[in-house]
Amino acid sequence: MSKVELQPPRGTRDFYPEDLRRRAWLFDQFREVARRFAFEEVDAPVVEHAELFTRKAGEEIVEQLYHFTLHDRHLALRPEMTPSIARMVMARAGALRLPLRWFAITQNWRYERMTRGRRREHYQWNMDVWGEPGVAAEAELIAAICTLLGRLGLGPGDVKIRLSSRALLEEVLRADVLRDRPEAFAPLCVVIDKLGKIGEEAVVDLLTDPAGAVRLAPGAARGVVAALGVRSLDEAAQRVPAGSAAVDDLRRLFELLAAYGLEDRVVFDASIVRGLAYYTGTVFEAFDAGGTLRAVCGGGRYDRLLETLGGPSIPAVGFGFGDVVIQELLADKGLLPDVARAIDDVVYPFGDAERPAALRLATRLRAEGRSVDLVLGSVKPRRALADADRAGAQRVFLIGPDEAARGVARVRELAGGAERDEPLDP
Amino acid sequence: MSKVELQPPRGTRDFYPEDLRRRAWLFDQFREVARRFAFEEVDAPVVEHAELFTRKAGEEIVEQLYHFTLHDRHLALRPEMTPSIARMVMARAGALRLPLRWFAITQNWRYERMTRGRRREHYQWNMDVWGEPGVAAEAELIAAICTLLGRLGLGPGDVKIRLSSRALLEEVLRADVLRDRPEAFAPLCVVIDKLGKIGEEAVVDLLTDPAGAVRLAPGAARGVVAALGVRSLDEAAQRVPAGSAAVDDLRRLFELLAAYGLEDRVVFDASIVRGLAYYTGTVFEAFDAGGTLRAVCGGGRYDRLLETLGGPSIPAVGFGFGDVVIQELLADKGLLPDVARAIDDVVYPFGDAERPAALRLATRLRAEGRSVDLVLGSVKPRRALADADRAGAQRVFLIGPDEAARGVARVRELAGGAERDEPLDP
Repeated sequence: MSKVELQPPRGTRDFYPEDLRRRAWLFDQFREVARRFAFEEVDAPVVEHAELFTRKAGEEIVEQLYHFTLHDRHLALRPEMTPSIARMVMARAGALRLPLRWFAITQNWRYERMTRGRRREHYQWNMDVWGEPGVAAEAELIAAICTLLGRLGLGPGDVKIRLSSRALLEEVLRADVLRDRPEAFAPLCVVIDKLGKIGEEAVVDLLTDPAGAVRLAPGAARGVVAALGVRSLDEAAQRVPAGSAAVDDLRRLFELLAAYGLEDRVVFDASIVRGLAYYTGTVFEAFDAGGTLRAVCGGGRYDRLLETLGGPSIPAVGFGFGDVVIQELLADKGLLPDVARAIDDVVYPFGDAERPAALRLATRLRAEGRSVDLVLGSVKPRRALADADRAGAQRVFLIGPDEAARGVARVRELAGGAERDEPLDP
Repeated sequence: MSKVELQPPRGTRDFYPEDLRRRAWLFDQFREVARRFAFEEVDAPVVEHAELFTRKAGEEIVEQLYHFTLHDRHLALRPEMTPSIARMVMARAGALRLPLRWFAITQNWRYERMTRGRRREHYQWNMDVWGEPGVAAEAELIAAICTLLGRLGLGPGDVKIRLSSRALLEEVLRADVLRDRPEAFAPLCVVIDKLGKIGEEAVVDLLTDPAGAVRLAPGAARGVVAALGVRSLDEAAQRVPAGSAAVDDLRRLFELLAAYGLEDRVVFDASIVRGLAYYTGTVFEAFDAGGTLRAVCGGGRYDRLLETLGGPSIPAVGFGFGDVVIQELLADKGLLPDVARAIDDVVYPFGDAERPAALRLATRLRAEGRSVDLVLGSVKPRRALADADRAGAQRVFLIGPDEAARGVARVRELAGGAERDEPLDP
């Protein structure tokens, strides 16, 4: 038979033991932070009905949907976790005790032309609060992100969280360019989120495209781009009527974040809008201070998502934190740990005659909770010891004909080289 | 907008917090056994090139492949993990230090018409040894299964492992009905694996089908079925020439299993053949003693799989242990634990004025490693205490205007009801 393709599908990853140890280390960090913040883990199928994800705002994430029809059903691999969680909340809306504090660690897929080393799958840590309308929820989520960053060794000088509010931007634009066309706001956000990537001229072109969903006049489009350059929350507050709820919420959020001790982690940044259509309020993204990488994580408030899916109105806020950018950043800074294999003991019978004694010993050590590598084949002693050393074992139990006859194993401590006999049946 | 479908695609599962706690408990059991046996975890994408799975032996698992074509690529959701692991071994065949002891916990998919509550996805714990030709590897794997069963509370009276050998069956049949047609052996195994499900007559029909891959004469087909009824290894040994390697291997395997203390867990059963085409040697399945459920797990030796994929010859043996049947069995026996939520503390500010103090306290407790639920909205004290109790919290920290003024939190121990003040800034 001809050889099968040795690599996994383009843009996807295998996890060999050393890769998986690193992934497990990162997931353990995610889970430990979620545990400290008392969030409960949930999961949903990686394959969903495609309609759960298809929205009409021109989002990149929808255009790149991994979808297919199988036995007359239009299915898709989830590109993100939030819609599945929304579906789960909706399915039990009456029975769930709000607020919910849920998290998930899931693999998500997007089918895009491969450029610049982008992947077609990644893992994402999601944390969401459902049922709490106030910014205490945002503050709690941002505190969780900062707790994680701190655990990974990334200080305020390494990663900052930039935050803004779509509600604030909407107030600005509804007083002006979107006065009569509130429905254009979500697609407008999807377009201006591309500003950093495609530049001002291209954004203006999209905003003024007569065939697009936004269709602004050129002057209005330039006004929108200018609004994103506002330098501070105070300056932004001057562009909306006094008593703006969006401004009050943002001020309150910064107060709460200060109480968490996070003044030096968070900055107001009017240019943050996020590329998903469903956000309605606070939006935030974390970036490395060097500015060389894509966003480390991002999130925001999406109070109307459940309604757009046909469900009841339940406010919600959440974030997604991918596994790829953070590992690039940690690698750049020398903070990615070399997670070594950690076995305790190697049990090594010289030959078949000693094997029954060896596996009785291995069984006893394992019952004590130790991680025991039982040498399975015929291996030379030198190689068995070298393998044990490479695997990070603490002790090797050698059982040769002489030891078996005496009812002992020869125990070598690999760190110091000390040897002693230990009875096989104590 | 019309309501989206509330349920996940048919045959798939959502995992709400209580479901996920139980799944995590089971996976922790899998991982702990794998750790004690010094197996290393690996993973691969759930989407693979379909050709990795398509074989021509008429296996049910291939017929039920979840496959689709996307951008001219024929892709599939993995129906089982072994081919992906084989691909990973092949891709680094020269660089990997054999034997490999690898395990994986993965979600696998099969698209079948929904009957009798069967699912379209399940999770499976796989353990495989690559590079060891001797039955010491089989013994180690079966010992790992039995260790898991023991941890779950399932004794030898609850679950037995039935084992046989395709090599032995092949010796029997090659001396007789398959003398000139060795290529018919793998599809023959796929057919006779259905014996328990479809019965003797239907198996004979398939074995004698002139359009099938086996095409035996009716007498030969009945002889094959009869060979599966052999009662003991001694009786089977009489049907092959003296010095049969397959018989020697099985005898040696039973000796090793006895040394592991597993005499009462394993029985010879000539009817075990497994439904996958790639097995070549030992095959085994675990069944509940009541016989009411499908196999709890199954595995075997597949020494030629890598060659059939176009790779080098590396012997291998492994098993898959699903998450569904074991949970049904544990539930039947009352052994499925009610895994409760375990948070440590609830911090409850009476109002917005006390919130900054509350989240400073929550931050301090979390830094100590405690799991802290910070009450986010305006909740009545009675409800906050009831929620804390339901969530299994140990302590509630109440901060009202009076406490805030005195710089303390009122701490209530939920178990005994004792209360005391604790300084907010110690």
